[in-house]
Parts: sequence; C-alpha cells; structure tokens
Amino acid sequence: MSRRISMAVIRRMPKYYRYLNDLKNEGVSKISSRKLAESMGLTASQVRQDFNCFGDFGQQGQGYDVAALHREISSILGLDEGYSVIFIGAGRLCCSLVENFGFARRGFKLLAAFDTDPAKVGREICSLPVYHVDDIGKICGRRKPDIGILAVPRAKALEGAEYLKKAKVKAVWNFTNAELGLPEDKIIVENVHLSDSLMTLCYKLNQLEDKLYG
Amino acid sequence: MSRRISMAVIRRMPKYYRYLNDLKNEGVSKISSRKLAESMGLTASQVRQDFNCFGDFGQQGQGYDVAALHREISSILGLDEGYSVIFIGAGRLCCSLVENFGFARRGFKLLAAFDTDPAKVGREICSLPVYHVDDIGKICGRRKPDIGILAVPRAKALEGAEYLKKAKVKAVWNFTNAELGLPEDKIIVENVHLSDSLMTLCYKLNQLEDKLYG
Repeated sequence: MSRRISMAVIRRMPKYYRYLNDLKNEGVSKISSRKLAESMGLTASQVRQDFNCFGDFGQQGQGYDVAALHREISSILGLDEGYSVIFIGAGRLCCSLVENFGFARRGFKLLAAFDTDPAKVGREICSLPVYHVDDIGKICGRRKPDIGILAVPRAKALEGAEYLKKAKVKAVWNFTNAELGLPEDKIIVENVHLSDSLMTLCYKLNQLEDKLYG
Repeated sequence: MSRRISMAVIRRMPKYYRYLNDLKNEGVSKISSRKLAESMGLTASQVRQDFNCFGDFGQQGQGYDVAALHREISSILGLDEGYSVIFIGAGRLCCSLVENFGFARRGFKLLAAFDTDPAKVGREICSLPVYHVDDIGKICGRRKPDIGILAVPRAKALEGAEYLKKAKVKAVWNFTNAELGLPEDKIIVENVHLSDSLMTLCYKLNQLEDKLYG
C-alpha cells in the first residue's frame, strides 16, 4: 500500500476521527459513506476516495464499521504510538493545554515542562515537573521526548526552538505564531495559527453584517 | 463585485495576511505573485486567481504593492471593523489568550470576561473586568459585544453557549471542541480544534519514523 497521501486528505482525517469518536460514544456501530459525507460537508464519493487512499475499510452497501474505522484512522494518524511530550514554557498556555486538552486520554505521555522562571523551576505545575531549560539536554537524554510543545511568547520563539533541538525532539507543536527555521527534513513542525481562525470568523461576521444591514 | 467566494480561498487569506504583515515589517514594498506563491506553497496562477476573486490588486509585471495588499486583505477579512469581544470563562485559557494573542494590536476591543467563580467575579484578570455570567444580559445590553470567546471546559460548553445567546453576540470563537448547536444563520461559529493540528503532527511524525527506521 502506498503511503504517499496528499496533505488535503491527511488534514481531513482528524475530522473523521473526531466525528467517529462521537459516533462511538453515542453507541452507533455502522455508518454509510453518504451519512458520513453529509456530516462532514463532503460528497459520498469524496469520503470513499479518502478511505481508499489508505486501504479498504467498508463493504459495499453495508456501510463502515464505526469502531474499526476509528481504530484504523487512529493507527494511520499515529495516535496509538504513545508519543511522549515536553513543554517549553511552563506558563498559562502550558497549564491551560494540560488541563483542557486531555493528553493522557488521547494516548500521549507528558514528561516535563521547561522554563527559566525561578518561581517555577523545581516545582510542579498541573502535575508536571518543571526543570530549568539549561538542564534540557541532560533530562531529555535519559528519557527521549518525541514531541516538544513550544508554549512561549512569540519573542522567545527562536530561543525555545534551540532548546527543542538540544532535547532532540522529533516534532514541534508550535504555538508562537513565529517561523522557527528548524530543519524540516529532520524535525516535523506543526504551527498553530489561532489568528487564522479568528480572521476567518471576522470575515464571516463581516459578510453576515453586509447581508443583514447593508 | 461578487462577494461569493469559496471557503478554500477565504481560508488562505489569513495566511496571505500573516505573510504580508511580515514583509511589511521587514520593509519590503513589492512582491511578485511567483515569490508570494513560493512562500505559501501555492502556484503563481493560484495566487493570481485568489486575488482576482476580490478585485484587482496588482499591475502586470510589477508585482503587488505589499502595504496596499495588506490593507485590502485586512479590509476583506473585516479586521478594520474594531470588533468588540467578551470571554465566557475567566480561567487560564482566557488569560493566556489575552496575554499572548495581541487583540488590541489586531484591532479588537476586549470588553469583559464572565465567570461563576466567586474568587474571580468582581475582580480583574489580565486587566479585564470579570462579571458573573448571570449579569451577562444586563452588562452586554449596554455595550453590545460582537464576538464571544467560549473558553470553558468542554463539559460547560452548552451552558456557555446559552450565555452567549443572552449576550446577543454575532459570532462565537469556540475553544471547547464541542458542537454548540447554535443557529448558524444568526450566529457565526468558528471552532478551534487544536486536536486536529496535533493529530496531523502525529501523522507526519509516524511517517518520518517509518522513513527513518522502518
């Protein structure tokens, strides 16, 4: 099976995953490509094409098995790998992610947070041990983290990225809204651009107001 | 000029905006569609098509005027409307957004946060006054907010959405990862699904490991 899949398809997978997760929790066991497509705002043939990229998940006319499809997508996305995670920046963003995101439930192992603030170093925040960033090489030499979450202000982005290189993480989840310039063939970088989402909201709001008032 | 533009084009606009913003800050005044396309991972003809949807921004062979294009996109996205914002939930997520997101710099007016926690109500967090959610109708009757940011845990999502209805916001920026079931013809909802981004990262990491180790 070829593993070269377009990013457009990959970007839809998490949405399938979320939707199948909800179905599973509601006790639904089978779903047709038509219903799945409707809920996702796609066409049934798009849904079938998407899944064909990865292999064969359904039987003609019987719909997809929700639990099996959920498991497969989980495996495709690498969610069953038990990836380990460190944070750079033990501030509010780190805490808010740890508290709200459900890393453990999603199969991630949170190892530690790193900061420079003497008030935080040597303590725990949200049950995570906080170490000084200068110790990152030593600490991460023992237990290698897969993913580094960069949760520092934009002005500290490049400095934080340097520490993540020292920690030898394989992937960076970047919340700084800054380009990190990491070697992309060696380190995966996924940027979170919250502003893109807010701008899209503003666009739609602007359109709505034009329609209603103008 | 038709204002019916596909969501795919709209979703690219914030990225153009961010990139043009960086160029502006670097003092670059002109950019060709080819260079813009390269930086965005698009083709030059895609870039030209995208901008043609909105009007005419460039002169053949001379490239785009960075400042003018930045201003136009800002206006298209409704970023110059000075939208006002309230938060439901005055916790870490609210604070972390207020501190890191630069709402004022982006032209938004932060009005207030609403919570139920007696330790927060009547005080300020990150310079925002915190009111009890029960007073939301009264407070927002005086100064109508455009956008409500739903920054509560997933379990409180629907309750929070009810308060946003009482506040008569026109748009909701939803951080709860839950479907809110708000009337979409009346209230714009933009969902932030951080998990989608992390899952995409996991997928790429999984692929990288397959390539490197197996």
